[in-house]
Amino acid sequence: MVQKKINIKKKFKDFFEHWSPKIIAEMNDYQFKLARVKGDFIWHSHDDTDEVFIVIEGTMKIEFRDGSIELKEGEMYVVPKGTEHRPHANEECKIMLVEPRGVVNTGELTTELTAENDVWL
Amino acid sequence: MVQKKINIKKKFKDFFEHWSPKIIAEMNDYQFKLARVKGDFIWHSHDDTDEVFIVIEGTMKIEFRDGSIELKEGEMYVVPKGTEHRPHANEECKIMLVEPRGVVNTGELTTELTAENDVWL
Repeated sequence: MVQKKINIKKKFKDFFEHWSPKIIAEMNDYQFKLARVKGDFIWHSHDDTDEVFIVIEGTMKIEFRDGSIELKEGEMYVVPKGTEHRPHANEECKIMLVEPRGVVNTGELTTELTAENDVWL
Repeated sequence: MVQKKINIKKKFKDFFEHWSPKIIAEMNDYQFKLARVKGDFIWHSHDDTDEVFIVIEGTMKIEFRDGSIELKEGEMYVVPKGTEHRPHANEECKIMLVEPRGVVNTGELTTELTAENDVWL
């Protein structure tokens, strides 16, 4: 049976919280998640997996211990596993994350920014 | 060390063949590939994996044995593993594919459309 296609930008109309990734698709045991980000996130790492960031709208920054990058619409970045990073956005930015099922947004830490996991849009 | 970010649309300036996916990034054992597609591809399936299509520019169609979908810029679709499908585009369309390392574009078949695998941009 033919599945529904997913319009990435339209899916952002269904949620408005910051730093709270929502799943829009699964491929094998990997998930595509959307998030709105604004302000500072925390330093964290994912010890077991790389993590892909793709900017859908806006601009964000990812800080590393040895530098930082700025990502604009249409740009992507793979944060290697075990790499400490801190996402940041001056203005609200809409992103898509790709990572294995079960990855928690704050990595190895649990803080007030730890989002409920496995929430579908 | 901070890696280079990837500008998805700009990467398309580096190749012009049709139906010949080029790798732009790896996340664990998964690959992000870009392809220009135009005309009819062949019916095929990938017996061991789902396959993600994301349209970066243009419009394409994916036919299935029981229907079809049209994908426009910013839309994505997950073809479930084992599902026979035939991509098609009237006009050239630029897409991003996400799938495990080692997936061949013509799936279980080898034809003149079978592209060299594991080619990085």
